[in-house]
Amino acid sequence: MNRHLISAADLSRDDALLILDTADELARVSDRSIKKLPTLRGRTVVNLFFEDSTRTRISFEAAAKRLSADVINFSAKGSSVSKGESLKDTALTLQAMGADAVVIRHGASGAPHRLASWVDGSIVNAGDGTHEHPTQALLDAFTMRRRLSTLEGRRVTIVGDVLHSRVARSNVLLLRTLGAEVTLVAPPTLLPVTVESWPCEVSYDLDSVLPKSDVVMMLRVQTERMNAAFFPSAREYSRRYGLDRDRLAKMPEEAIVMHPGPMNRGMEIAADVADSARSTIVEQVANGVTIRMAVLYLLLGGETL
Amino acid sequence: MNRHLISAADLSRDDALLILDTADELARVSDRSIKKLPTLRGRTVVNLFFEDSTRTRISFEAAAKRLSADVINFSAKGSSVSKGESLKDTALTLQAMGADAVVIRHGASGAPHRLASWVDGSIVNAGDGTHEHPTQALLDAFTMRRRLSTLEGRRVTIVGDVLHSRVARSNVLLLRTLGAEVTLVAPPTLLPVTVESWPCEVSYDLDSVLPKSDVVMMLRVQTERMNAAFFPSAREYSRRYGLDRDRLAKMPEEAIVMHPGPMNRGMEIAADVADSARSTIVEQVANGVTIRMAVLYLLLGGETL
Amino acid sequence: MNRHLISAADLSRDDALLILDTADELARVSDRSIKKLPTLRGRTVVNLFFEDSTRTRISFEAAAKRLSADVINFSAKGSSVSKGESLKDTALTLQAMGADAVVIRHGASGAPHRLASWVDGSIVNAGDGTHEHPTQALLDAFTMRRRLSTLEGRRVTIVGDVLHSRVARSNVLLLRTLGAEVTLVAPPTLLPVTVESWPCEVSYDLDSVLPKSDVVMMLRVQTERMNAAFFPSAREYSRRYGLDRDRLAKMPEEAIVMHPGPMNRGMEIAADVADSARSTIVEQVANGVTIRMAVLYLLLGGETL
Repeated sequence: MNRHLISAADLSRDDALLILDTADELARVSDRSIKKLPTLRGRTVVNLFFEDSTRTRISFEAAAKRLSADVINFSAKGSSVSKGESLKDTALTLQAMGADAVVIRHGASGAPHRLASWVDGSIVNAGDGTHEHPTQALLDAFTMRRRLSTLEGRRVTIVGDVLHSRVARSNVLLLRTLGAEVTLVAPPTLLPVTVESWPCEVSYDLDSVLPKSDVVMMLRVQTERMNAAFFPSAREYSRRYGLDRDRLAKMPEEAIVMHPGPMNRGMEIAADVADSARSTIVEQVANGVTIRMAVLYLLLGGETL
Repeated sequence: MNRHLISAADLSRDDALLILDTADELARVSDRSIKKLPTLRGRTVVNLFFEDSTRTRISFEAAAKRLSADVINFSAKGSSVSKGESLKDTALTLQAMGADAVVIRHGASGAPHRLASWVDGSIVNAGDGTHEHPTQALLDAFTMRRRLSTLEGRRVTIVGDVLHSRVARSNVLLLRTLGAEVTLVAPPTLLPVTVESWPCEVSYDLDSVLPKSDVVMMLRVQTERMNAAFFPSAREYSRRYGLDRDRLAKMPEEAIVMHPGPMNRGMEIAADVADSARSTIVEQVANGVTIRMAVLYLLLGGETL
Repeated sequence: MNRHLISAADLSRDDALLILDTADELARVSDRSIKKLPTLRGRTVVNLFFEDSTRTRISFEAAAKRLSADVINFSAKGSSVSKGESLKDTALTLQAMGADAVVIRHGASGAPHRLASWVDGSIVNAGDGTHEHPTQALLDAFTMRRRLSTLEGRRVTIVGDVLHSRVARSNVLLLRTLGAEVTLVAPPTLLPVTVESWPCEVSYDLDSVLPKSDVVMMLRVQTERMNAAFFPSAREYSRRYGLDRDRLAKMPEEAIVMHPGPMNRGMEIAADVADSARSTIVEQVANGVTIRMAVLYLLLGGETL
């Protein structure tokens, strides 16, 4: 396995399965009364966040601590970075301080890749620009596998703002690697121009796709883009691309509903759909910690389980 | 004992005494060279702060760490919460991440109560709006008991902005449960309209109450309210309701002076009174860590002491 | 050894050597697979930062955690401090919460000294105003000793904004104690008026000093001062006081280049000089963690190594 986790595209089928299988093992730890393994004792994980993301930061922090690593949170706001320090110098600094892994969230696509060229430790991409968010794709795949037993041949529909979504991109790549068939559903303005080269189908009609979906993954509407000519009105968006109870009824009986969070209840997903038994939204959060434990465990070469 | 600590009103006399007695036991840990117990190893305590309160957050953090729990700090600023995530979804997220206890500070009265309806873990109210701050009342009671040996029949005078004070409210409720008699002293504009139903006396004349007080608890003047027509001028407030050396002299010889901090020295309390041997202000801080250890210990059902 | 580390001026030659020797011992821990010592288990180190400095805060945090201490970060922003709490009350609060050491960064020269008069725990000055930054001087001395085997008789040139630099001041004092000879090079506007009483030489001509320097330490240009009539233009500054490849060539073959970071590449130091084999900039960061381990270890009286 690679020393870094930068992109879902870098993961071979075997790599991805190893991570999912390791996560299956680690999930058992959560059932113990003491949810802590000594595996990464003495290792330091730095959360280097150039964009706010409490949710993702906490998930990595919980994962690292459950493996007994030390965690140092580095929010770029008000740091030397804001005094103009280059990403390279920040990287060299963290390495010199003994970071065994750096978990990075950055607004610029490609920042984690550049970071990886400067440091000896492991880099984990926790979201870079509109590029990738590979641990999100892994936790989604893990969730699907647990609910649907396999990903092979499963039909996954991803709905919403694909253009600005690193979640969609990482999911398309990883799901393809794992043998699932992906269909993107979005307004034409919210699809990237390169989508034709992606290994997936595209549709503009959610209702026709739902009956043949094993999984429907709703993307978050970034309401700050609502006025940016990308979107129809909120009401129109919700009417055409929102998942409500009527649309849920069109899905096969065992199909599941996913959302990476945070949700806009009533916008892309109705509250009762989000809370239904077919929704895996809360499981995804729990699985996020488990997948990140697996990734840190494998990258930092912990002892045997 | 309850699974949560939301309100001092929920505590029976036995509950409250159990917490105080447990705190007595735990206070001995502070005398050891290694001030750390393995009791909550592998448990995760999340500090979920929607309002800034470094002082309270640090006190809970120190308490949890002294019991060997992992602590994750979640400041709502710049989090998904500011992207419009509902409190419910934040709660479900924290639970899914494995939080065994969530310590919440929130600007809205009742928020911890609502949180408790959504999660399996324990909720500890670290201050909600103008409603309650039960661990403050517990640490105050603990401090009084240590200084005065019992609370039964003790006369406690609480002075200041009762209207906006969750500290006053929680203290009135808990002190009553523990058998003390409480008198509130405040300008009429700073008393809640419901105060008549509270189990305490009300007075507008500090000087007449001091000679019969075993405890005088000065509330913080929130200087940002000074211009809000609630207050007389700072000087007038200080003259009528501030505790200076002359007033201290009117109190019984063994009576003590308390303040929840942070103080405005020279406003509600004179500097020499704050620093006098009769002031318990610094003890209150130390006792705060001990009480929070006791609460976390009891709620999370640690092993036997 | 003293109970606090406030100023490089307080360190005798023996004190300083003890810290450097202890750091030499502790550096070996970094070579182990588990980089963690149980020495300060159960001790609490509080990082009390009134000014942003992620770099220094993380260095102390990593040092404390490597010694198994609990670390609590206290950023004064949005804390009771911003509600007007006095430094004294903050100090008493931290002490009451059980802080064994308080690492303080403060904008006012002398703040750590005042803090030390109020608390029983150890105070470590992590930078106060334009006064001192003693752990920076110690890590610089440690770096020089490792590269040059001894400091005795070494000629150290410090270049740049001495006027606003606590780094320069602490270095001059400590280097003198350790037997090195220091020369300051700066525009006249960027030297303090008291510099004549400092135990060092002053020069305005960098090129004439370089050939007799064993160490050249470049200070950070604080670009926010560029418009403040202190500085010539950026270009002029760089031309007269910047270290580029041509100037590097004028230094003796074994002379080293230092910088406390964060750097303005292209301003006070050229990028290729910063990255050259003669630059110790990354080593300084690593040594910073080691020195801070040594300081915490000695102040908190850990067990024998």
